[in-house]
Amino acid sequence: MAKDLTIEVAMSPDLYKYHSNDEAVVVVVDVLRATSAICAAFANGAKELIPVSSVEEAREYKDRGYMLAAEREGIILPFADFGNSPYNFTPERVAGSTIAYSTTNGTKAINMASNAYKVFVGSFLNLTAVAKAVRLQQRNLIILCSGWKGKFNIEDTLFAGALTELLVNSGFVMNDDSAKAAHDLWNLAKNNLIEYSQKVAQRSRLAKLGLDDVFDFCFTPDSTDVVPELCGKMLLQYKSN
Amino acid sequence: MAKDLTIEVAMSPDLYKYHSNDEAVVVVVDVLRATSAICAAFANGAKELIPVSSVEEAREYKDRGYMLAAEREGIILPFADFGNSPYNFTPERVAGSTIAYSTTNGTKAINMASNAYKVFVGSFLNLTAVAKAVRLQQRNLIILCSGWKGKFNIEDTLFAGALTELLVNSGFVMNDDSAKAAHDLWNLAKNNLIEYSQKVAQRSRLAKLGLDDVFDFCFTPDSTDVVPELCGKMLLQYKSN
Repeated sequence: MAKDLTIEVAMSPDLYKYHSNDEAVVVVVDVLRATSAICAAFANGAKELIPVSSVEEAREYKDRGYMLAAEREGIILPFADFGNSPYNFTPERVAGSTIAYSTTNGTKAINMASNAYKVFVGSFLNLTAVAKAVRLQQRNLIILCSGWKGKFNIEDTLFAGALTELLVNSGFVMNDDSAKAAHDLWNLAKNNLIEYSQKVAQRSRLAKLGLDDVFDFCFTPDSTDVVPELCGKMLLQYKSN
Repeated sequence: MAKDLTIEVAMSPDLYKYHSNDEAVVVVVDVLRATSAICAAFANGAKELIPVSSVEEAREYKDRGYMLAAEREGIILPFADFGNSPYNFTPERVAGSTIAYSTTNGTKAINMASNAYKVFVGSFLNLTAVAKAVRLQQRNLIILCSGWKGKFNIEDTLFAGALTELLVNSGFVMNDDSAKAAHDLWNLAKNNLIEYSQKVAQRSRLAKLGLDDVFDFCFTPDSTDVVPELCGKMLLQYKSN
């Protein structure tokens, strides 16, 4: 009988070093809002997306003529074309385009995982599609939660639990306490996800900025089957064959 | 009306830097087994205990004539007098004594928090007594989970949730997602704590070493009302007046 593959959850980018494994698949998540926006961009026809870690690099991409989506702490950077609401990535804007994208937490986490065998971008928008892509690799899985400036957050952990739930009964086992805790939190929340997620700190941060209109959108599973994948410095749409 | 005091939870020593606050009270927990053992030592009459971070320092204390309790990854260090099972800290051994103590996770976490206004040592053994000591300070609270070699663990998070539960209805509010998640996990586990905690990874690590006899003991609340407090480089028994 084949040995079960393992699922681990890094609850913050600061903890990724304890899970990191060049041979594993990494799914990076930042529900509010970077990876939800990236999934929306590809669902709306973006050709490629460059995740950019620093503000300085973001400015360089803009200076070199790239379309730039960029924010820090929810607020659009003054030299960017637009911020990181998933609603910004409309088909009119993004279809066929290359976009440089820089956010407070999510794009840094994506770049941090570049050592891995494969890096997928996950969100509730593409939950089932990501699970399918992960299963096809037949590799151990690390779910990397982007958190909030290094701190744990609930929404990314819930996604980790949801993805774990889709995999535990098909050849994967939970390999650490963080996967088990994420799975338990997901089971506590899943039947009432929107209500449960009212408690997340990021909701009140976004509400203060008038940016919480994306909340229901970001917590609705499976609106798309695109799976963005990191290839070199680019995110492209993953193709299974 | 007085402003509510805040509770935050650092789910790993690596995340403590995001919570650290010189004006706050820190409760450090390492349920399996360091802080449970420290509480047992004081309950059995230890006079003072020196938390030691490194193996080298532990050896120096031994060479200087101190009684030394020390382990790494559950295994007693060869030059130590005994390891870190709470059962090692018997009244015959520890009453009236000063003990140097070094463990894989817990004693490092205690020293890491030394910047704080007050540092208390918590475990299920002294849960209610710690809550009472925290309330007396009228300061914001950070619960520092020792984790496992930097990683999240369930047992310390459950303690964080249990302590939060005792404080949220008496002038404290949960200030971050990690406190809320810890609280939810505690509420999921509390009515069946021993069974729930079977899933923690540290249980199987200890079982492999034949060291899981302390499991029920470490998850039984309120066997003592001692509250160890870090004073300079020493842990002493906290006195409220």
